[in-house]
Amino acid sequence: MSTTAKTRLADLARAAGVSTATVSRVLNAKPGVRQDTRDAVHAAAVALGYPLDKPVRRPGSVAIMTGELSNPSFAAFAEMVDTLLYSKGIPNFVCPAGPSGTSEEQHLEALLGHDLAGIVSISGMPANNTLSLEPYQRVIARGIPTVFINSPSPDLDAGFFSCSDIAAVTSSVDHLRSLGHTRIGLAVGPERFLPARRKVAAFEGLGLAGASIQMTNFTAEGGQVAAGRLIESDHTAIICGSDLMALGAIREARSRGLEVPRDLSVVGFDDSPLMAFTDPALTTVRQPVRAMCEAAVSALLRALDGTPLDRTEVLFHPDLIIRRSTAPAP
Amino acid sequence: MSTTAKTRLADLARAAGVSTATVSRVLNAKPGVRQDTRDAVHAAAVALGYPLDKPVRRPGSVAIMTGELSNPSFAAFAEMVDTLLYSKGIPNFVCPAGPSGTSEEQHLEALLGHDLAGIVSISGMPANNTLSLEPYQRVIARGIPTVFINSPSPDLDAGFFSCSDIAAVTSSVDHLRSLGHTRIGLAVGPERFLPARRKVAAFEGLGLAGASIQMTNFTAEGGQVAAGRLIESDHTAIICGSDLMALGAIREARSRGLEVPRDLSVVGFDDSPLMAFTDPALTTVRQPVRAMCEAAVSALLRALDGTPLDRTEVLFHPDLIIRRSTAPAP
Repeated sequence: MSTTAKTRLADLARAAGVSTATVSRVLNAKPGVRQDTRDAVHAAAVALGYPLDKPVRRPGSVAIMTGELSNPSFAAFAEMVDTLLYSKGIPNFVCPAGPSGTSEEQHLEALLGHDLAGIVSISGMPANNTLSLEPYQRVIARGIPTVFINSPSPDLDAGFFSCSDIAAVTSSVDHLRSLGHTRIGLAVGPERFLPARRKVAAFEGLGLAGASIQMTNFTAEGGQVAAGRLIESDHTAIICGSDLMALGAIREARSRGLEVPRDLSVVGFDDSPLMAFTDPALTTVRQPVRAMCEAAVSALLRALDGTPLDRTEVLFHPDLIIRRSTAPAP
Repeated sequence: MSTTAKTRLADLARAAGVSTATVSRVLNAKPGVRQDTRDAVHAAAVALGYPLDKPVRRPGSVAIMTGELSNPSFAAFAEMVDTLLYSKGIPNFVCPAGPSGTSEEQHLEALLGHDLAGIVSISGMPANNTLSLEPYQRVIARGIPTVFINSPSPDLDAGFFSCSDIAAVTSSVDHLRSLGHTRIGLAVGPERFLPARRKVAAFEGLGLAGASIQMTNFTAEGGQVAAGRLIESDHTAIICGSDLMALGAIREARSRGLEVPRDLSVVGFDDSPLMAFTDPALTTVRQPVRAMCEAAVSALLRALDGTPLDRTEVLFHPDLIIRRSTAPAP
């Protein structure tokens, strides 16, 4: 080590009130140093005008924030992100938020005590316009690189990777129209969720009526309620905002003595695992899970190495997977 | 605070080489103190013969270890454990192990740097007799209370809560025999997994032939392979070690021109979410997820408050859920 480097270590140690060994650990991104200590060393470097000669990679784990694990789509995204981080040797864990369990905000609060390298958030809080962005603003302000899948926000300094809702709805409508359907309904989750609002906008943009839209919940039960209303108003096809909604819609149709797809066509969204095993096998729009996760993880890794995240939302094109829940209009 | 208490704080601080404020934080289980510091304070208390006047609850999070999230049964257990811990105000996160992602051992390694209060392990390493128990012995030796769901071991000082494989296989066989089946096969995962060995032992204990047993994998693909062999050897019913195997078995039967349940009856295991939506709706053995998780979490909470864990394995009785994948023998 050069004398200059030694002097710098000693200066930083004095300014930050820690040992030179600790400064060295911080500069070399070794684990075992508390985040507040690391922050103090970085602040000292800035205050003393010592440019750090290489980007300082944060040690620690990446937290994967996700929605409820009982939605197989969230589980699939989380598993893929783990696989990709693991292939790069980066430890990680999953923080699932659910209606009856720990919320995303509470997870973020608990994480403040952890050695956190970065965050991948899957359908996270920015997708819900009733939630404050403050918890994410706080972690991002602490220099923790964060990337969001399917939950963009213009107000966060982060990376954003989403599946195109316009493409999803357009391909679903095109498919159903090609089968002769004209009474097409849309069943999505509540207004507060961006993917619901985006699908509604895409649906109306295709010249379909607002009266054919039902906003309930992204669950199977939400699908049942929406399907009941759409069936009563003489729709012959329903595009759903999630596979779970589609399964609920099929159940509702059967409970009314209808056959799917003979009497009612149903299209899902996600192509989550097992949808090829459902009765009938579900026609659905497949999110490109691997491609989206690869892009998000790559951006996160570059950010860990000092390349700022690009705030432009990257949109991915989904594929319509045609199985057996759609048929010509009755 | 009494003078005695002040003296004790000062003595412990001196012996452990930390401030009295830190000792106080440790004794009151406040967060923000590194585990090695806490260990040093505890060691000092023991060395100085100061009995701690109340059990010291470890701060920090509970880690939920689980198998791959693409198995909806693991996801359901993890979600239930989160819900129960959350209701007690205990932060937690999930460490999913998967064939292509981070392994359970690697998760445990990464967790050594965390403030960890306890561990709930779902179908964890002890269920696999090719894996060393050393990673768990290490965390348990550090005083981190650990409870295992469906992965018991006589060699760990922990709590164990499992679903009875004997009851699962017995109720499945009884159901199929009552439908007139005599050529009943068993499809389970590999020998190294305890639930597979236990189901095999239960199956043989009911007088069924070893030649009717196929040990492949707990996945849908494993179910396909096992079903192919069992169909070729003239079995009319297959009991599977997981719902995913059952879905694979149904797929294999269809690819051979057979109808389920007319030509082949199939029974799953887990009753994981969505199994009522499959084609046909799956007859399966439901693990009592809530009851198992409640018992495991209760034991963990008592351990956090100082009550030692009871090493006796607690066995839970599953329910056979009869849907549409079983029918009278052809």
